[in-house]
Amino acid sequence: MTKQRIYLFDTTLRDGQQTPGIDFSVEDKIAIAKMLDEFGIDYVEGGYPGANPTDTAFFSKKRTEKASFVAFGMTKRAGVSASNDPGLAGLIQAESDVVCLVAKSWDYHVKVALGCSNDENLESISGSVKAVADAGKEAMVDCEHFFDGYKANPAYAIACARAAYDAGARWIVLCDTNGGTQPSEIRDIIGALIASGIPGDRLGIHAHNDTGQAVANSLAAVEAGVRQIQGTLNGIGERCGNANLVTLIPTLMLKPAFADRFETGIVPEKLAELTALSHGFDELLNRSPSTQSPYVGASAFATKAGIHASALLKDPRTYEHVPPESVGNFRKVMVSDQGGKSNFINALKRRGIAVGKDDPKLDKLIGIVKEREATGYAYEGADASFELLAHRMLGRVPEFFSVTSFRVMVERRFDAMGRIRTVSEAVVKLSVDGVEMMSVAEGHGPVNALDIALRKDLGVYQSEIADLELVDYKVRILNGGTEAITRVLIESADGEGGRWWTVGVSDNIIDASFQALMDSIVFKLMKNRDMAGRVAAE
Amino acid sequence: MTKQRIYLFDTTLRDGQQTPGIDFSVEDKIAIAKMLDEFGIDYVEGGYPGANPTDTAFFSKKRTEKASFVAFGMTKRAGVSASNDPGLAGLIQAESDVVCLVAKSWDYHVKVALGCSNDENLESISGSVKAVADAGKEAMVDCEHFFDGYKANPAYAIACARAAYDAGARWIVLCDTNGGTQPSEIRDIIGALIASGIPGDRLGIHAHNDTGQAVANSLAAVEAGVRQIQGTLNGIGERCGNANLVTLIPTLMLKPAFADRFETGIVPEKLAELTALSHGFDELLNRSPSTQSPYVGASAFATKAGIHASALLKDPRTYEHVPPESVGNFRKVMVSDQGGKSNFINALKRRGIAVGKDDPKLDKLIGIVKEREATGYAYEGADASFELLAHRMLGRVPEFFSVTSFRVMVERRFDAMGRIRTVSEAVVKLSVDGVEMMSVAEGHGPVNALDIALRKDLGVYQSEIADLELVDYKVRILNGGTEAITRVLIESADGEGGRWWTVGVSDNIIDASFQALMDSIVFKLMKNRDMAGRVAAE
Repeated sequence: MTKQRIYLFDTTLRDGQQTPGIDFSVEDKIAIAKMLDEFGIDYVEGGYPGANPTDTAFFSKKRTEKASFVAFGMTKRAGVSASNDPGLAGLIQAESDVVCLVAKSWDYHVKVALGCSNDENLESISGSVKAVADAGKEAMVDCEHFFDGYKANPAYAIACARAAYDAGARWIVLCDTNGGTQPSEIRDIIGALIASGIPGDRLGIHAHNDTGQAVANSLAAVEAGVRQIQGTLNGIGERCGNANLVTLIPTLMLKPAFADRFETGIVPEKLAELTALSHGFDELLNRSPSTQSPYVGASAFATKAGIHASALLKDPRTYEHVPPESVGNFRKVMVSDQGGKSNFINALKRRGIAVGKDDPKLDKLIGIVKEREATGYAYEGADASFELLAHRMLGRVPEFFSVTSFRVMVERRFDAMGRIRTVSEAVVKLSVDGVEMMSVAEGHGPVNALDIALRKDLGVYQSEIADLELVDYKVRILNGGTEAITRVLIESADGEGGRWWTVGVSDNIIDASFQALMDSIVFKLMKNRDMAGRVAAE
Repeated sequence: MTKQRIYLFDTTLRDGQQTPGIDFSVEDKIAIAKMLDEFGIDYVEGGYPGANPTDTAFFSKKRTEKASFVAFGMTKRAGVSASNDPGLAGLIQAESDVVCLVAKSWDYHVKVALGCSNDENLESISGSVKAVADAGKEAMVDCEHFFDGYKANPAYAIACARAAYDAGARWIVLCDTNGGTQPSEIRDIIGALIASGIPGDRLGIHAHNDTGQAVANSLAAVEAGVRQIQGTLNGIGERCGNANLVTLIPTLMLKPAFADRFETGIVPEKLAELTALSHGFDELLNRSPSTQSPYVGASAFATKAGIHASALLKDPRTYEHVPPESVGNFRKVMVSDQGGKSNFINALKRRGIAVGKDDPKLDKLIGIVKEREATGYAYEGADASFELLAHRMLGRVPEFFSVTSFRVMVERRFDAMGRIRTVSEAVVKLSVDGVEMMSVAEGHGPVNALDIALRKDLGVYQSEIADLELVDYKVRILNGGTEAITRVLIESADGEGGRWWTVGVSDNIIDASFQALMDSIVFKLMKNRDMAGRVAAE
């Protein structure tokens, strides 16, 4: 049987941005679009050009290579022609492949929110879709409140979808905007819509999680005939979030109920990177991944029940619904972790570090990584620190220099003019080839002062780190209270276009920053000698 | 139409205990059983008497008043009679109304885990059920792996359920033990089981969330005819958790697809305590409630989109799937730079601060909030700082004390033994009612040292902040590099059960932390005077 294609549409950068507490910068958006594009998502919706400076800047060029790049916006206002609507014109001019237009499909909203007639709204939909198509772009229509609208006035909801379809929209997306629709209602309403003459392969579903069923509603829609699913990474989104693509993708690809009938644009090798994708996104949001997330959570394949654990060891299928490695996750039974060794060997090989399967140093390295990760290190997000650690275990990092001591001071007081002043100062004492040197610097805060002082005079190595730049700095508190364990991640860059992340963990944020700064400098010196940083593509 | 009764079965204390990181004491179990009993749950499963000292102690007496109290355990071993099986005998002797027996219903597990014949397993089920019934207790059978078992050998899975039914079990509970079953499979398999002659009002569903569909699977089972649902508070449980009763209950009671046909044992007044139940349980687990939880999350009825927010104010039904007060939650139109004047007035009113629409101070407050949010403050996540700022603008915050200066120092050096030591020390100079005081403290890091020094001696106010505790500390870097702007959010709690968030922003993390710490202390002093912290329901 030929499998039918399901198209995946990501709205992390648009609807996901509605999550309380989440605000993406242009740099964040560029990084996330790249992650999605490389993973194999079909459509990446980038935001609402014209609505705010960030989105306008983001749409100044196309940000995906394989995925269709989508701009979101409103249909034209009633009473003006498409060409005379500056909002729509701006939207069409944005650098996107696709324009996704949001349209009212609940007559009550047409009256209350738009204040126009039902017919005017239909004309806005078809006029806008035609304008997008005439500009040579793919047109898509998000039918807002489609299910609630259908319950209130079925004929009008269908008429809105029909207007989009007849005007040539590639996709008509049915939105459960308020998130309260039940799977049985999804099935019935989509069934009626398809029966009215709009084929399922032109329909999409956009579900919200207000009753905890965004994933189930999306899958129910697919069973009813829909062929595009909209969702977000880790299910972020307004209120309770959008449908979680990280949960939907493995279900579509691994569960026979779907995998036997459908296919997506994602290859199995990419599916094995799903856990890394999900955790990398949380890292970018600077939050801890949820341990209970389906497929990718740290507990998703963890067993503490003694009776389950022993059966699990006899045959994993007895208590695992899918193999954890298929989604890049690990089985966890008590302390003894089985998986890992071959993963480690591969990770080292990619960095040009050859190590035998039976080398005792390999076991030592695995032991240290596990021990450190248990205390808060996150080597998944700090490649350079992992590589340095591996080199150290295998005895290949020269001691370029050593830091004898440092002192950082922050003082807030009134200056001579009676104004409050906060001053940060750092003193670093280090030894380079037996020569003692001492540097002092002020900075914008204690970490900045320490960073400046540390890189102020490295003696014979100073010229080598002239192009070293710290481009990002992230702090994560791993447990509550001001005495908590702190993880610092630092991204560095150099003049050759290299970029690397290092990590430090301590109950003292200055100490954690110091560790990550030191790793960054040592990595740069190794890299200059071609002793590190040669990560090969997989 | 007479509504059919759905019975709710809580397994928080048994399956919920399998959650990695969760271990209940006897006192915890007593407290949770009381919460569930008072809320109106039909069955409270308390654990596995005999399996560990906690559960044995918990079952030394009945712990519920209205709810049926359930003991969990295994069916008797093959080859011995029920009366000669000490495990089963102990289980029946525990102080419970109901005994829930777990039984294998997948032939592969009968062979691998039990090592007996298929017929011996059937005999164990019926013999055990009869022994429970003969002891005058209600018998219930959890058919482990029922759906996977059915897929492997439909006749045998049905035979297991049949053995329990014929022996007189009140309920036969169909368990999706590995959590991978899809709703369509749930429907089909339950349909076949009912068609085989076991009525739906004798069947229960026990779903896990491994594909994010535990709630949907439970509801699909109800639609297929099942009349008992097993789940846990906040969806805790092994791996990805069990079906979340906190999500299921309002869906059953408020969504017409279910509410029109079914009723539960929970009255509407109790439903209005759902948010308090969910948050109280998290409190007992000592963790922060998930903000995106359906119905009860802090974001479940929160809106930050300007366009949605204005429609929401016109008519809440436009963007809310159920009224937030029906589950004891609040509508939140977030105070943020996207909000308009009426949002501010409402936000102030809820905090007991009356201000006229044309008061120039209101414009000043809005101006300052917008200006500060542009520089990185996030008042949507720091209610207490927002309230303090509002009070300050309207001139009603007493100057309890002032900090003249502070100094924080972090030093890393070798101690006399040649070991690396990092020491953090803070000195704070403050003035209370004209009296100058100076405190010094060491801490786990600079922020902790500053926190301790700041709260060490507040003079006449010291006794008032004795119950003030910092429970969470979050740091976010708002742009790249070590000189970046840093936002600090601090959550505080006090002995009266109050919880509040404060915020500080600076290019110096110590300074940002200082601002948030100061706001927390001042808010506490205001709260003690009943001058702050009175957030009213809308």
